[in-house]
Amino acid sequence: MKPYKKDFSYSYALGIFSTIELLNTRPKQVETVFIHSEYKEVERLQDLCHRHSIDIKQNDKIFNRVSQKENNYVLGLFSKYSCKLSDIKPHVVLVNPSDMGNIGTIVRTLASVNIINLAMITPAADYWNPKTIRASMGALFHHEIETFSSFAEYRNRYKSHEIYPFMLDGDVVLGLDNCPKNEKYSLVFGNEASGLDESFRKEGISIQIPQSDLTDSYNLAVSTGIGAFIFAKTNGQI
Amino acid sequence: MKPYKKDFSYSYALGIFSTIELLNTRPKQVETVFIHSEYKEVERLQDLCHRHSIDIKQNDKIFNRVSQKENNYVLGLFSKYSCKLSDIKPHVVLVNPSDMGNIGTIVRTLASVNIINLAMITPAADYWNPKTIRASMGALFHHEIETFSSFAEYRNRYKSHEIYPFMLDGDVVLGLDNCPKNEKYSLVFGNEASGLDESFRKEGISIQIPQSDLTDSYNLAVSTGIGAFIFAKTNGQI
Repeated sequence: MKPYKKDFSYSYALGIFSTIELLNTRPKQVETVFIHSEYKEVERLQDLCHRHSIDIKQNDKIFNRVSQKENNYVLGLFSKYSCKLSDIKPHVVLVNPSDMGNIGTIVRTLASVNIINLAMITPAADYWNPKTIRASMGALFHHEIETFSSFAEYRNRYKSHEIYPFMLDGDVVLGLDNCPKNEKYSLVFGNEASGLDESFRKEGISIQIPQSDLTDSYNLAVSTGIGAFIFAKTNGQI
Repeated sequence: MKPYKKDFSYSYALGIFSTIELLNTRPKQVETVFIHSEYKEVERLQDLCHRHSIDIKQNDKIFNRVSQKENNYVLGLFSKYSCKLSDIKPHVVLVNPSDMGNIGTIVRTLASVNIINLAMITPAADYWNPKTIRASMGALFHHEIETFSSFAEYRNRYKSHEIYPFMLDGDVVLGLDNCPKNEKYSLVFGNEASGLDESFRKEGISIQIPQSDLTDSYNLAVSTGIGAFIFAKTNGQI
């Protein structure tokens, strides 16, 4: 086994949290679970693996080869899989996200507000990277994630969702009492550095998160968190 | 000049954004601004430095010595300074935050909602580290940050703020329409891994951010973002 690369057909869940989420959520994708000889709570993991007929192997060397800096004692090797978004549930669309840690944090936040259908518009950072999975605390495995080569391609597949592009100068200033009520919303967020370009305004009702003049913008994971929380709370997901 | 260490009496703003925030907000603290020979837009920076009688020097070697991985072309060397929190404005209290990137993101978010009085309860990661300043996009310089060795010490100094500890099982489930109205609120957030212990419940009205059962918790920077946004919006800071 080698350190993860983007073109692999498989990836790794590193650490006990991510591996348990993997086993509970996507057991059919799991090839093998590796444990380090210093890992103490083997029994629970063994039970879980046996229930799904998954091999569990002790192998210390693999952790040196695959883990970067961190100390990990559990690793789930799994095959990548493809997903389709729900036609009826809320979506979030990330347009060209470039930071794996941000994607992981966003994925964790969205699962926390019961939004688990995520479109990624390429080019985008690799969401299968173990760093993303780690930052998501394994919440990635709860999501249906579908990749599109353009926003138009996404829009063409999912025509009946109402689009809400988040823009610094969006037309609607989002407050606590004016969030749109809509069962099939699609919240669209741009790249960390450049945001969404002007062409997105005509795709739907553009949303602005109010802020002071002390900063230029919110961090992407924070703006996604605030926006998704308010939409999910308003529309009954949480 | 050497790579930053915690016990230095000075620190560095790395990059043009952070350095400009430093110059605009804390000009008296700035010792010298260094620019790399490849930095193109020197004029604006020169104007700003001259206005505050600050030395600006070209020096390429310093960037190799001080910057870690990133390419930086501008560096502001400044003396650390001490602050006192406002007696009348809202506070955020971070209890034992351990991640410098998280602190930077939180500092940026709080400035975005006009909360610029931040208490840090030690042990805590070093908020003067250039990584924190970078993650804050320079918003750190807008804040009054005061350090306390315990929550009791903070509480003893600022007795009239209403305390809102954020806890996974907080007594009030924060929605969009039930946020407490209070001009002098103090939002308290625990450590990334352990949160706030049970003793905080009696300090005030404990707050829970609702979430699905798909994850254990929100990321600290995200929960601070959601909580601070709702309090700031409800109480007129934004």
